[in-house]
This record gives sequence, structure tokens and C-alpha cells, in this order.
Amino acid sequence: MQWYVVASLLTLLTSSQGILTTLSQSNGGYKYDYATIPFLAEIFKLLVSSIFLWKEFKKSPPPRMTTEWKSVCLYPIPSIIYLVHNNVQFATLTYVDTSTYQIMGNLKIVTTGILFRLFLKRKLSNLQWMAIVLLAVGTTTSQVKGCGEASCDSLFSSPIQGYMLGVLSACLSALAGVYTEFLMKKNNDTLYWQNVQLYTFGAIFNMGRLFLDDFRGGFENGPWWNRLFNGYTITTWLVVLNLGSTGLLVSWLMKHADNIVKVYSTSMAMLLTMVLSVFLFNFKPTLQLLLGIIICIMSLHMYFAPPSTLLELPVAVAASQGVSDKTDS
Amino acid sequence: MQWYVVASLLTLLTSSQGILTTLSQSNGGYKYDYATIPFLAEIFKLLVSSIFLWKEFKKSPPPRMTTEWKSVCLYPIPSIIYLVHNNVQFATLTYVDTSTYQIMGNLKIVTTGILFRLFLKRKLSNLQWMAIVLLAVGTTTSQVKGCGEASCDSLFSSPIQGYMLGVLSACLSALAGVYTEFLMKKNNDTLYWQNVQLYTFGAIFNMGRLFLDDFRGGFENGPWWNRLFNGYTITTWLVVLNLGSTGLLVSWLMKHADNIVKVYSTSMAMLLTMVLSVFLFNFKPTLQLLLGIIICIMSLHMYFAPPSTLLELPVAVAASQGVSDKTDS
Repeated sequence: MQWYVVASLLTLLTSSQGILTTLSQSNGGYKYDYATIPFLAEIFKLLVSSIFLWKEFKKSPPPRMTTEWKSVCLYPIPSIIYLVHNNVQFATLTYVDTSTYQIMGNLKIVTTGILFRLFLKRKLSNLQWMAIVLLAVGTTTSQVKGCGEASCDSLFSSPIQGYMLGVLSACLSALAGVYTEFLMKKNNDTLYWQNVQLYTFGAIFNMGRLFLDDFRGGFENGPWWNRLFNGYTITTWLVVLNLGSTGLLVSWLMKHADNIVKVYSTSMAMLLTMVLSVFLFNFKPTLQLLLGIIICIMSLHMYFAPPSTLLELPVAVAASQGVSDKTDS
Repeated sequence: MQWYVVASLLTLLTSSQGILTTLSQSNGGYKYDYATIPFLAEIFKLLVSSIFLWKEFKKSPPPRMTTEWKSVCLYPIPSIIYLVHNNVQFATLTYVDTSTYQIMGNLKIVTTGILFRLFLKRKLSNLQWMAIVLLAVGTTTSQVKGCGEASCDSLFSSPIQGYMLGVLSACLSALAGVYTEFLMKKNNDTLYWQNVQLYTFGAIFNMGRLFLDDFRGGFENGPWWNRLFNGYTITTWLVVLNLGSTGLLVSWLMKHADNIVKVYSTSMAMLLTMVLSVFLFNFKPTLQLLLGIIICIMSLHMYFAPPSTLLELPVAVAASQGVSDKTDS
């Protein structure tokens, strides 16, 4: 499969995730325990990956699998980074409001580029760096609060700790992505075995979260497994399936494409969600949304288009301006 | 002189124009007749150009000058286009409010690119087209109304005639620029003789405007020449000198650079004015201003940087990705 097909699918599914989550609410709240969603999504991903792995076993040659502990012990690390990230996120939100937090979230596009360069040693051209910055600027533009919205003046007025934690949060989020890419690409193990390891630890960490919630709540509602599916509707199940599927697609992209492709997919998904919300939930289309979309599409083109198409000048002009023709990359 | 020095000077002077005009007001209004400013600026430009032309006459060989009527009669056309433009602007403002008009004004960046391509037959690479669109997007972003500002909801709610007139206005503004560039470059006449022709007609048309205002006002305050300098202060004179100087710089750029350079200069000036207003007039710095500045700087770099610096990849990577090295343009 081509990476851009998977990336487009990821955009569609990520964007429906926001829509489905909104649809799964009733009277503005969740009737189910939201913490059960990522846990069940991990279980779904683990099941799907196990089935594919089992199928590969029936073929010859058998799939490549590294099973030594030295390799396996690298797989809980993404879950650990996400755990730290969630706590930093929580701390950040004690200093800044949610919309400032959302705006700062776009920083992770730039931090992903930087860690991608530093840790994975991937070279980017100046034009690609500019494209990455523009992607972050574009998603931020679409989120600029329009006139008439509540809670003004908050952006430059939070305490400095809030901004520092926001930057830390962006770094952790990028680190998790870049580390996962390193993990998936470090050897030629089959993707399904890598997934099984990743999601086993993912499921364990998410289960830990459910236990912790129970402890904190003093087991008032009984243990989590007794009320796992409480309040679940068809839509809630779709949210689980959707989240699980996007996870599988991200895994595939980490192995066969890279973090930057993923960042473009999810950024485009965010814009698509905003456009769909205009139609589905009667959101008001804003000028900043339109501007953000134009900026992000330009950025996408700058990053992925072959340089020759960007600079192609008619031969006569190219010659007179001293620009030599480029071979297609 | 290098074109980028002139362009930077134009940015500085255009940006001080906004500041000086604000400073020349007293109690939020003008004590002088604002229509006298462009008239006196034309006279100033005419004087300066005449002096330079006279100086050139004393040198040998004498300056190149085409004096046949067939050529001279092309010079009032920019003034005529501006006259039509002013009336279209007036008509547009009966349909849309001033801030929507200001936002639509950014369209002239794109229409200038299009007319530049169509009438002057200048080729632009895809990257340069993207840069031009981004410049328009960037200036528009900086003008997005923040939350808490008055007169919401106006942008997408004006009658369709307003938007059509806005587009017409952007086309006329671009046409005037592109036509002037054609005029300045069509032969090797000395710039000062071309200026003398341009500004003589400019002065005549502006004088016509003052006469018309008198007629409309029924000569209540006497003829315009009796009250030409009424209410003038040092600052008002600075506004005149500044407007005249920017005009001379634009003329120079039309002859030795092009319309796109001018559009970048004046767009950057708009952003600079907004930044200066934060310090001088205690304007609140907004997120959208910051985003707009980043977008415009990226656009500037995309348009003017030699393609080789944009795409420069370390040799090893370039080879492995099949990208050949480009010669510097």
C-alpha cells in the first residue's frame, strides 16, 4: 500500500474521531467512563495485530521476530512517555486555560521536526523546515479566537510556568512519536509482532489507569471491570473501533513512512473536523479557518511536492535567469 | 543602488506614513483638508524630479527623452485608473464596512501577481505563486479581528455586490501598478523625464479633485488655494514629504525592480506599522499579528531566496534521494 493512501485514511478516521466523540455525548456529557475508551482500543489493536501475526505464522518463511528481553523492554517506553505527558498536561492546565493549551499544542509539530532531525538524523531542506513551521502556524491560525467569543485576553497573560510546561508537553509528545518510529524501524521484525509488544504494554498501562481511578474514587462504583461497558451505545463502540484503527494506521506509518507524514495527517484531520463541524453542528465558519486551511495546504505542497515542480520555470526564462533545470527527485 | 535597499527604505517610509498620519490628527480628527496632502505630494515629486532632470541636462550626453505626443499621452492613464479606483472604493464602502474592505484589500497582492503574469508576461515559478498567495494570507491573518472587538459577523454577511466591487477594486489597483511598470520600462528614457510626465498629470488630477470638492461644497470656505495650508503643522508637512518620497521610491522600483517587490515592501510596512503601534499607541499585540508576521517572512524568503538555498540538502542525502544539486540562480 502507498503511504499517502494510509495517510489519507488516517486523516479521515482521526477527523471522524472528533465527530463521533461529540455524537457519543448525551446532554453535553458522557454517560460512559471515558477512560475505558483507550483501554478497549488497545485491546482491539492487540487482537487485530495478534490475528495478523498468527496468519503470518502459517505462511513460510515464518515472520521475523526478535524476542530477547533486551529488545522487548524497549516497548513499554512509549507508554511511559505518554504517562508522563498526561501528568504534564494536567499540570499545564492548572496554569493556562484549555484554549491556550490547545493553541500551544501546535508546537508539537515543530518539536517533532526538531527531534526527528536530532534523534533520527533525518535531513530536511530549508523549504521543508519552512513547511513544518507553516503547518504549525496554519493550525494555530484556524484556532485564533474570533470576535464575540468568551474568555478574551488569556493568550499572553498566563504565568510563565504555564508556557514552559506547554513547551515540555510539546517535547514529550514529539519524543513519544519519534521514539516509536525508532522502535518500528530499528530492525526488520514484522510490524505485527512489534504491534503486539507495543499494545500489550499499552493495555497494561491503560488498565493501571483504570485501577488508579478506582482507588482514587474509593471503589465507590465498584471495580472498573464491573462497569466497563456501562452507558455504551453503538456510537461509543464506533469511537473505540475508530481510535483503535487510527492507532494501527499510525503504527503502519511509523514503520513505512515517518513522523512528519503522521503530523500532516493529524493536522489536516483537525482542519477537516472544523469544516465538518460547520455542516454537522452548525459551527460558524470563520475567516481564520479559511486562512488556516490555505496555509496548511501550501505547507503540504511545499513539503511533499518534488522540488522540480515547485521551481519549474519555462526553459527560456530559466536559461535567461541562470536557473538550471532540475532532475525530478 | 540595489533594489533591496530601496525596497527596505520604502517599507520604512510607508510604515512611518501611517504613524505620521495618526500623529498629525488632533482630537481624533484632521484640522487640515486631507485632500491637499496628495496634491502637495505630487507637487513635491514634480519639483524633485524636475531638479534631477535639469541636472542631467547639464551632463553629456543629454538624457534620453521621448517627447512625441503618442508617448506622452500614455502618462495620464495611471491617474485615470486611480480616479476610477477611488470611485469604486467609495461604492464598495456603501456595501461593506471598513474592516471588511481592508481585509479584501489584500486581494490586490494576488491580482498584482496575475496581471504581472498576464500583461507583463513575467513567468513565476510555482513556489513564487505560493509565496504570493501566502503574502496575502499573512497580511489578512494579521487583520483577523480578535475576540472582544466590536462589529462582529460582518465578514461573510455583506451583500454580494460588495464583494464583487472589492474584487474590481483589487483588479484596478493591480492594473495601475502593472501599467506604471509597463510605462517605466517600455523605453530607455531617463526616469526623471518619465516622472515629470507622470507627476504633472498626477498634480492636474489632484487639483481637479480639489476644485470638485469646492464645487460640491458650494465654495462655502472659498477656493482651495486660499485655504491650502490651513491647519498645517510640522507633522502635516512631514506627512506630505513622506508621501512624496514613497512615491519617488515606488517610481524607482517600477523602473529598476518590479511590482512584486513593491507589493512585498508595502505589505511588510503594514505589519511594521502594526508592531510600532503596539509600542507607540499601546495597541494590544495579538496572536494573529505574530502569526501574520511569521507567514509573511516565510513568503518573502520563498519568493526571493535563491532556489538552491531552499532545497540545499547535504550531498550524501541529496544523492540518495535522487535530487541533483542546483546551480545558484
